[in-house]
Amino acid sequence: MTSISNAEVEQWGIFELALEGSSEGNPFLDNQLTARFSQKHRSIEVDGFYDGDGIYRVRFMPDSTGTWHYTTASNLESLNGKEGSFESTRPSADNHGPVQVANTYHFAYADGKPYKQIGTTCYVWTHQGDALEEQTLETLRNAPFNKMRMCVFPKHYSFNENEPEYYPYPLLSKGSSKWGGSWEGEKKGWSFDYSRFEPAFFQHFEQRVADLQKLGIEADLILLHPYDRWGFAFMSAEDDDRYLRYIVARLAAYRNVWWSMANEYDLMPQKSIADWDRMFKVVQESDPYQHLRSIHNCRGFYDHSKPWVTHQSIQHSSLDQVRRWREEYKKPVVVDECCYEGNIPQFWGNITGPEMVHRFWEGTTFGGYVGHGDTFKDPNDILWWAKGGTLRGESAPRLAFLGKILEEGPAEGLDPQDGLIRSKPPFVGKAHEYYLSYFGRNRPAWLNLNLPEGEKYQGEVVDTWEMTVTPLAEPVVGGQDIELPGKPYQALILRRIN
Amino acid sequence: MTSISNAEVEQWGIFELALEGSSEGNPFLDNQLTARFSQKHRSIEVDGFYDGDGIYRVRFMPDSTGTWHYTTASNLESLNGKEGSFESTRPSADNHGPVQVANTYHFAYADGKPYKQIGTTCYVWTHQGDALEEQTLETLRNAPFNKMRMCVFPKHYSFNENEPEYYPYPLLSKGSSKWGGSWEGEKKGWSFDYSRFEPAFFQHFEQRVADLQKLGIEADLILLHPYDRWGFAFMSAEDDDRYLRYIVARLAAYRNVWWSMANEYDLMPQKSIADWDRMFKVVQESDPYQHLRSIHNCRGFYDHSKPWVTHQSIQHSSLDQVRRWREEYKKPVVVDECCYEGNIPQFWGNITGPEMVHRFWEGTTFGGYVGHGDTFKDPNDILWWAKGGTLRGESAPRLAFLGKILEEGPAEGLDPQDGLIRSKPPFVGKAHEYYLSYFGRNRPAWLNLNLPEGEKYQGEVVDTWEMTVTPLAEPVVGGQDIELPGKPYQALILRRIN
Repeated sequence: MTSISNAEVEQWGIFELALEGSSEGNPFLDNQLTARFSQKHRSIEVDGFYDGDGIYRVRFMPDSTGTWHYTTASNLESLNGKEGSFESTRPSADNHGPVQVANTYHFAYADGKPYKQIGTTCYVWTHQGDALEEQTLETLRNAPFNKMRMCVFPKHYSFNENEPEYYPYPLLSKGSSKWGGSWEGEKKGWSFDYSRFEPAFFQHFEQRVADLQKLGIEADLILLHPYDRWGFAFMSAEDDDRYLRYIVARLAAYRNVWWSMANEYDLMPQKSIADWDRMFKVVQESDPYQHLRSIHNCRGFYDHSKPWVTHQSIQHSSLDQVRRWREEYKKPVVVDECCYEGNIPQFWGNITGPEMVHRFWEGTTFGGYVGHGDTFKDPNDILWWAKGGTLRGESAPRLAFLGKILEEGPAEGLDPQDGLIRSKPPFVGKAHEYYLSYFGRNRPAWLNLNLPEGEKYQGEVVDTWEMTVTPLAEPVVGGQDIELPGKPYQALILRRIN
Repeated sequence: MTSISNAEVEQWGIFELALEGSSEGNPFLDNQLTARFSQKHRSIEVDGFYDGDGIYRVRFMPDSTGTWHYTTASNLESLNGKEGSFESTRPSADNHGPVQVANTYHFAYADGKPYKQIGTTCYVWTHQGDALEEQTLETLRNAPFNKMRMCVFPKHYSFNENEPEYYPYPLLSKGSSKWGGSWEGEKKGWSFDYSRFEPAFFQHFEQRVADLQKLGIEADLILLHPYDRWGFAFMSAEDDDRYLRYIVARLAAYRNVWWSMANEYDLMPQKSIADWDRMFKVVQESDPYQHLRSIHNCRGFYDHSKPWVTHQSIQHSSLDQVRRWREEYKKPVVVDECCYEGNIPQFWGNITGPEMVHRFWEGTTFGGYVGHGDTFKDPNDILWWAKGGTLRGESAPRLAFLGKILEEGPAEGLDPQDGLIRSKPPFVGKAHEYYLSYFGRNRPAWLNLNLPEGEKYQGEVVDTWEMTVTPLAEPVVGGQDIELPGKPYQALILRRIN
């Protein structure tokens, strides 16, 4: 027994086994390491990975308390047949386990606590050097977001011309840093050894995932994306699959990880739908914990009904379509990109703060979840949506306000509630208990609802921009006019009182 | 010769011939009167109509100056073979003739003057009694609208419970004035003699059309509509066709008349598409002047490509679809109902003033025209959209401002201009001369356009809500950043300077 391990790990924490072995040849290709973790009648096999300098690691996230035993298997004698055990202890107060799908259209942590997604996007914030990355974390500490969409690979795009500090593979030859208007990275002179990974890259990356975990933020890891001058978007199927297995082996034990197969998969003509299906299955088969899995479109949707898709990660600016997508695919809808608050020339990145907040509320009251981004002109091209830093927009406090309202709503999530009114506004909630509607740029001066007979509700008028909640003086019952302020951006909450 | 006629009529004015004849039997059914008007090698046959009290009339709108001769034909001896002539003189300053389709997607008066539609809707303003009707006209005198959508028949609907002063047919039995939640008028006890018209009704109605003409407002006459407790929506095909021929005979000589076959035709299940086709053809065949013809949907569109449809009269709240409809049907697009500015509970009637103005600009910069309505809570249920009266909203002055900008734009109309920028914002205008874009709730702080090489433009930033036009200090050329205010609801106009 030469294991370097921790004897006590909290439930949904990371047990890590580090073993020394040969660094001869190409350990990434030549050597395999797995470990079988067992508790009572259950056993779970997880992949290890080579972390450079002769160190091999296995990480494991116990999903229950108590004693877990493990045994390793490897083609290397020095890694093979190692046995040991550890104690999984009760999770600490802020540890609720990984997020999973709950009630078909919603999410909850593994311990049952509802997870009401308020996401943001900083695609390549982990590629910006420690000073900016620390600033990003500081911003997030005071921001309302409980999910971060972020790429593994660096990004080449408008406002994204800088060279990353780390590459995921050993660099063989440096190429052009110029934007060529297309994403055919391999033609720009870059060359990497795809048969080896660069441990420093991944060590840094997973540190950032851990930093997010400490802030209670889920890391929606975008595994592939089209904005590439280096060639990572153009690897072979074999290299793609090896990369996917490696990153799953390294990161699946982090409870806050989600897998997003790609950003704008449909802008990668070099990959077929069969490729995406195959890669989804690689991730699905490799991940012992079945973290959430999705794939993000630019225009056309991937078929979200495929069994390996856990939820819909959508780009679309019509939030009133959310209910249709729910019904079509019967999975949670997260509109991760509905345009970003900002002022850049690109129309996906210059909506106003009120519009950003409006889209969150609209997506919410059609039964879904929405994502934020912040894209303001910056003399150093530091835009939150790509690099992190600070927020310039006005929406964040309002999204915190929305988040609080969601936390105080039904634990099961908000589902469409028909029949309260003939067509619009849409209502969501939980029948006979809680109803929520949002009027957006409509502003009724009164409404008259078909509430179930004999039921009384406490009404609250919510000003979604001013962040005020004003209780109605009279209880709300069916068939009686409810006076409303007749202003835009108001919502109405009805809570059953008898 | 017993003609009562005017010897001089301006071009596109009304020549009216009044003849006395028998009032025995049912003159509406029994007696026919036509007249043939001739000038040089042209002759035009028009239908006359019975106007009660033994008076038969023929109205004719000369479309050219000079001498016109006429001869009548009738089964009644007293109306038959009457001959005469009149002089058509040059039109007065405000008379530009009827509006027609121009340049495929636009409109112009018969004299060539461009007509840039800024419409409004007061469905049954002519059914409200003289005091309110005069107030409506007074409001219109100071409003920006150059088109009024208005029903011939009275309307039964929310906020529309009052009995009209006139009925179009002789009343046989009075029925219920209660709202029954459906529009099966004949089941509510009302009964009319559909074999006779009520001249007083039509005399009043055409006076109101003439009143609009004096204000320079086109009257888009909605011939049928579903909101009916009296039965006019449920007449037989024979009665419908007789009604259509009668109203065309009476009103076609008014140069400001447009024919709208129906409002929300698709909410009238009692009529089939074949019925609408037939009725369109009745109007098309009866109207010597081929006034504009359309049909207005609630949800699904009628096939606007049919040859009797001159332009698209659309109900839809997504103005960014205008270009698609242009391309699909190759006819002008008028989004007559995109929701109304107001505060009533119905979501089609409670958008804000900024949203109303926004939709006008959006429809404009996708290559179409838009319609206004005003639906504010009123203690007496006097809502502009139905009954006229006064405007409560904030949009009208901004629509006047838009109208002025359209008047100052290219005479040919605004057509999509691609290639200035990769995707958004959409530009319209006239290539190499004039470009207009509108950013809505997007607010770029700068843009960089692919303008044709060597061309220079004067740029103007338009604040569509504040109604300001701010010229850019520097001429605009391709490939150079244009600094913009980064605020919502701005437009950009580029006028070629060399």
